[in-house]
Amino acid sequence: MNMLVDGEWRTDAYESTDEAGEFDRQETSFRNWLDGSVAAAGEAPKSTEFPAESGRYHLYICRACPWAHRAAMTRQLRGLQDDISISLVQPERYDEGWEFSAEHPDPLGGHDYLREVYTDADPEFTGRVTVPVLWDKQEETIVNNESSEIMRMLDTAFDGNDASLYPADLREEIDEIVDAIYDPINNGVYRAGFAGTQAAYENAVDDLFDALDHWEGVLAEQRYLAGDGERLTLADVAMFATLVRFDHVYHTHFKCNRRAIHEYPNLWGYTKDLYQTPGEPSGSSDGRTGSETTRESGVPETVNMDHITRHYYVSHGDINPKRIVAVGPDIDFTEPHSRDELPGGPPATLFE
Amino acid sequence: MNMLVDGEWRTDAYESTDEAGEFDRQETSFRNWLDGSVAAAGEAPKSTEFPAESGRYHLYICRACPWAHRAAMTRQLRGLQDDISISLVQPERYDEGWEFSAEHPDPLGGHDYLREVYTDADPEFTGRVTVPVLWDKQEETIVNNESSEIMRMLDTAFDGNDASLYPADLREEIDEIVDAIYDPINNGVYRAGFAGTQAAYENAVDDLFDALDHWEGVLAEQRYLAGDGERLTLADVAMFATLVRFDHVYHTHFKCNRRAIHEYPNLWGYTKDLYQTPGEPSGSSDGRTGSETTRESGVPETVNMDHITRHYYVSHGDINPKRIVAVGPDIDFTEPHSRDELPGGPPATLFE
Repeated sequence: MNMLVDGEWRTDAYESTDEAGEFDRQETSFRNWLDGSVAAAGEAPKSTEFPAESGRYHLYICRACPWAHRAAMTRQLRGLQDDISISLVQPERYDEGWEFSAEHPDPLGGHDYLREVYTDADPEFTGRVTVPVLWDKQEETIVNNESSEIMRMLDTAFDGNDASLYPADLREEIDEIVDAIYDPINNGVYRAGFAGTQAAYENAVDDLFDALDHWEGVLAEQRYLAGDGERLTLADVAMFATLVRFDHVYHTHFKCNRRAIHEYPNLWGYTKDLYQTPGEPSGSSDGRTGSETTRESGVPETVNMDHITRHYYVSHGDINPKRIVAVGPDIDFTEPHSRDELPGGPPATLFE
Repeated sequence: MNMLVDGEWRTDAYESTDEAGEFDRQETSFRNWLDGSVAAAGEAPKSTEFPAESGRYHLYICRACPWAHRAAMTRQLRGLQDDISISLVQPERYDEGWEFSAEHPDPLGGHDYLREVYTDADPEFTGRVTVPVLWDKQEETIVNNESSEIMRMLDTAFDGNDASLYPADLREEIDEIVDAIYDPINNGVYRAGFAGTQAAYENAVDDLFDALDHWEGVLAEQRYLAGDGERLTLADVAMFATLVRFDHVYHTHFKCNRRAIHEYPNLWGYTKDLYQTPGEPSGSSDGRTGSETTRESGVPETVNMDHITRHYYVSHGDINPKRIVAVGPDIDFTEPHSRDELPGGPPATLFE
C-alpha cells in the first residue's frame, strides 16, 4: 500500500494523519464495473466494456487485508473459484509496498512488486497501491480496486450459486449497514491504531466500542445483520473481515483493548457462526494460483491468521518498531456456537 | 531508571537486551538493612547502623512501578504510614530518568531528578536509578533500593500491627514462592515486552503463561499462595503487583496477550480479593507527602491506574513510539469475588 510521493514510492504516506492526528484513508483509484454489476440499491446494472466472462478476471489479494478479505470471501461463498483466479502477495509489507515472493509469486506478470501491476494498467499511476485488485487478463488492466465495489460486482455480475449475498429486496439495508460500520468499525480500528494524538485515538476507540455495543444488541435478536436477520449478506462479509482479525491484532497492535470480541457473547457467537459457514463446492480445479495447496471448504480458507498477524505486527514499524508478532489469544473459531437457535442460516445450496 | 553510560545518564541502558535479544535486568546497588530485619528464612535478624526508628526513613516510589508497589503495599498493610514517610515521582520517565515535578516534588532534597538522590548518597554513583528507594533522613543516605529486601525489612524491623506478612513458620515457603514467580511472572512480563527477537519474546510468553496456569491451579484450592493458603503474605504482595497491572499494560503494551488475568477465574478472584484487603487505620497524619490528598483505606491507595498506564505507554518510546496510552479493559477490581468461600482471610487486625 505504498504511493509515489516526490518521485519515491513511500509506504508511510499510506499511514499518514492529518493536523489533528487523525488517520485519513485515501481514495482508491480504479472504479470500473463488470457488465451486469449492481453498484447500489435501486441502480440499474452497469453496462461497461468488461463482460463477466468466466476465466477472464484475476484477484490479487493479501490474506492479511480485511478489504481484500471482502472480495475473497464473496468469491468463496458464491462459488466463483473456477470463474475468477486468485493469488496472494507476501503478507509483510516494507518500504517497497506489497510484494510478490518465491512463495507468493505474480502468476500473470511475473512482477516483483504489486505496484508494477498498477503501472501495467496505467503507466502514469502514482496513487496508493492496495489490495484487492480485480485484474482483466484479456485487456491487461485493472477493473477496480475498491473492495466494497468488488464484492458487489462479484455477487451480481456472475451467476455463481443461488446464494446471493446482495439480494434485491435487502440491497438498500445492506448498503446502509456497510456504510454504517465502515467509519466506526472497519476503518475505526485503523483510526485508533494510526492515531497521532491521544485525542484522535480516544475518539476512534469510543466510536468503535459504541458501534460494537450497538451491533452486540442487534445480534442478540437475529442471526445476521440485514433485514430480519435470517440471511447472510454482504453486510456480514464486511463485518466479519474486521471481527475475525480483532482479538489477534486490533485489540493489541491497534490498542483497541477495551474489550475483546470473544468477550461479547453475541458478536463472538456470530464470528464463529460466519467462520463455520460452509462454502460452495467447486469443480476439480480450484482456479487459484499461488502456494496454497490445501483446500478447506468455505470461509476458513479465506482466513489465514499467520498472514494476518505477520502483516500487521511486521509492517507497521512506526507503531511496533521491534516488529515482534504477538502470540494472540487462545480462541477457537471452530468451537460450538448457539446461533442456530435463531431463525435463518446459511443458504441451503452451500451445504450441497 | 537511567544509568550513567560513557558520561551520559541513559534510560535506554535500562531496557537493553543481550546478544540473544533477551532482556537482562541489572542488579540494584544499595543493599543495607534496618536493624532487626530478617533477610531470609533461617537467618538471624540483621544488626547494622540503621535502627528501625519511627519517622527516620522515607520511601521514594513511583505508583506505576511494580517493584515500588511491593514496598508501598507492605507499608500500607502493616500500618506503617506514620512510621515511614513516602513520596512519589512523576509517572512518565524520559531521557533524564525518574523525575520530580511540581505535582510530585522531592520533599526532602528538593531535587529535580531522582538520580540526585542517588548521588547525594554516593557522589560516585553511576548505576541504575530505580524505585523504590529507602532513604535514611538522619544519615542522609540510601539504605536499600532492592524491593524484595525492602518489603522484608519493613515487615520484620518495625513492630507495625499484628498482621505480619512474613511470619517465621512460612518464611521458607514465602522465599521460595517469591523466587519462583520472579523470573516467569514479575520479570517475565518485562522479558516479553523488551525482547529484541521473536524467539526471546516467545520464550518469555511461554514461561509466563505456564506459570500463570500453574498458580491458577493452586488458587483453585486455597485463598493465598503460601502454606495452607489461609494467610496473606509477602508472596501475595509480590504476585499482586504484577497481576493488578497485567490487563491494562502487560497484556497490550508488552504483548502478553494469550489471556487476560480477568479471564482466569481464580487469578482474577484472587486479584480482586487482594485489592479489597482493608488496610490498617493510621493516625491523624498519614505520614505521606506529595500530591495525593484523598486517603482510601488499604490496598486501593497503593494502586493508581492512571500513573500505571501513563508510565508504561509514555516511557517506552522504543516499543510505543507514538506514546498513545491504551484505554484498557472495562474491569472492576471492586466487584464481588467468592474467595471468602475458601478458608482463611485478611488478618482480623486489619478490620479494626
